Amino acid sequence: MSLLVVGSMAFDDIETPFGRSDNTLGGSSTYIALSASYFTEPIRMVGVVGDDFGDEHFNLLHSKNIDTRGVKVVEEGKTFRWAGRYHYDMNTRDTLDTQLNVFADFDPHIPQQYRESRFVCLGNIDPVLQVKVLDQINKPELVICDTMNFWIEGKPEELKKVLERVDVFIVNDSEARLLSGEPNLVKTARMIRNMGPKTLIIKKGEHGALLFTDNGIFSAPAYPLESIFDPTGAGDTFAGGFIGHLSRCAKINEAEMRKAVLYGSAMASFCVEQFGPDRLNDLDMLEVEDRYQSFLDLSRIGE
Amino acid sequence: MSLLVVGSMAFDDIETPFGRSDNTLGGSSTYIALSASYFTEPIRMVGVVGDDFGDEHFNLLHSKNIDTRGVKVVEEGKTFRWAGRYHYDMNTRDTLDTQLNVFADFDPHIPQQYRESRFVCLGNIDPVLQVKVLDQINKPELVICDTMNFWIEGKPEELKKVLERVDVFIVNDSEARLLSGEPNLVKTARMIRNMGPKTLIIKKGEHGALLFTDNGIFSAPAYPLESIFDPTGAGDTFAGGFIGHLSRCAKINEAEMRKAVLYGSAMASFCVEQFGPDRLNDLDMLEVEDRYQSFLDLSRIGE
Repeated sequence: MSLLVVGSMAFDDIETPFGRSDNTLGGSSTYIALSASYFTEPIRMVGVVGDDFGDEHFNLLHSKNIDTRGVKVVEEGKTFRWAGRYHYDMNTRDTLDTQLNVFADFDPHIPQQYRESRFVCLGNIDPVLQVKVLDQINKPELVICDTMNFWIEGKPEELKKVLERVDVFIVNDSEARLLSGEPNLVKTARMIRNMGPKTLIIKKGEHGALLFTDNGIFSAPAYPLESIFDPTGAGDTFAGGFIGHLSRCAKINEAEMRKAVLYGSAMASFCVEQFGPDRLNDLDMLEVEDRYQSFLDLSRIGE
Repeated sequence: MSLLVVGSMAFDDIETPFGRSDNTLGGSSTYIALSASYFTEPIRMVGVVGDDFGDEHFNLLHSKNIDTRGVKVVEEGKTFRWAGRYHYDMNTRDTLDTQLNVFADFDPHIPQQYRESRFVCLGNIDPVLQVKVLDQINKPELVICDTMNFWIEGKPEELKKVLERVDVFIVNDSEARLLSGEPNLVKTARMIRNMGPKTLIIKKGEHGALLFTDNGIFSAPAYPLESIFDPTGAGDTFAGGFIGHLSRCAKINEAEMRKAVLYGSAMASFCVEQFGPDRLNDLDMLEVEDRYQSFLDLSRIGE
């Protein structure tokens, strides 16, 4: 079923304790779309790049049945670039360089043929732009939204306007505490859900994720990885797997929501195994279902 | 079925952001025995106290069918005292005072009638004493062992001698990493299991616990508490609930091991709700089973 993805598209220079990868395809919408592409189609992508964004990248997206007609290519413009270095524990990173380039003037325009989409995934961009997207589309079945501390601190009021209009909000634990000002995650979840989103997902990195709905709390385990190679894009990949699974469900209920959290976790666990989105390029659905199964096994009592 | 518990018995002065509690009954064997008492009997306790350890404390233990004939009372001696203050986040604490008193000369003697016990739980004491205990008993069905960073750093070789002889080793994540010198928990678990214990439980505090066995990894969720009142004894209470459940199983298999981790987690989630072991004194089994059920619900997909 149709999924509209709006977010950043970028080239990343990534340094980890295990090596470095320059000019790596990145950006929130890239990871979300690639991850979701294993579950659903068409995926409609809205973003902006410069003319340095080569055909090989478009070809990769098209090979995953990702519709890029909504991606604006700015002639003689340069694509958004980010450079970062991860610390030894892989949980923290330093941003070494940020060049917004054409992304600085990103003003998402939703093509006519995109305005009727069953699902909308708002990647981490300026909340003002997230609202602009919602203003251009007919109310979809489900709106999913991601953000980051930069916007929570810089544009809290604008972000709250977005939250009033989203169904599922995805943040990590430190961002959730920053937004609520409350250290306890249960209280934090209640406060954030009171801001609008009926469904809240709090990601805890190596400790899994928590899903808060009207039906209660679901605790998703983390996949016990022997080595995390590159965490870049893991959060967006989670969102892509989450919305991807929901997109293939005729009916969305609590059980499918919980499964979606595990599929998101499974996709994220693949993402971190290689640099950038590399691991997301060559997966097959059997691997995905196998990984999902191991997530189930992690918390199964058995008999 | 018979359970032998050996560890410290103490009086604690506890300060948390929510208040303070002085002369609180404490010690590893106290929490282990009280927690396990909800699942099994007889529980045989070995420890040492001074004559300041009043009848009210012995009466409490006896009311839980805990056999204290193995507890040595030193005339004109003073019971081990510990004083600590928890920080706001409740995950870290400062030890303000430690008075070993009669515990300084603790030399566990296992009474004849205790030497045939089906289960043995070695609370956090000097590994030299833990070995002394094992030398005095006939091989039980299962030996469970706890320790702390103090012994990992101070007596690593003695601790390794203990590990060669235990079936289940319980540590928290920082202690596990300290023991292995490896940050990755999956690699850490393999290294520690190679030291002897076939079963390893790594506690992650507010993030739940991981069980490592020959059959794989089980990830137990944490109970999403709105407020943690006093973490003192939570780890020992976990061990008590874990061994307590196994004690009531005719046959121990992977499924019972996984259930035992959830029962340990359930008991620990009660323990932190009040100062010291107070919450462990007035529970009924219905509450315990209800809490266990909520742990199951936390990771159930449902239909």
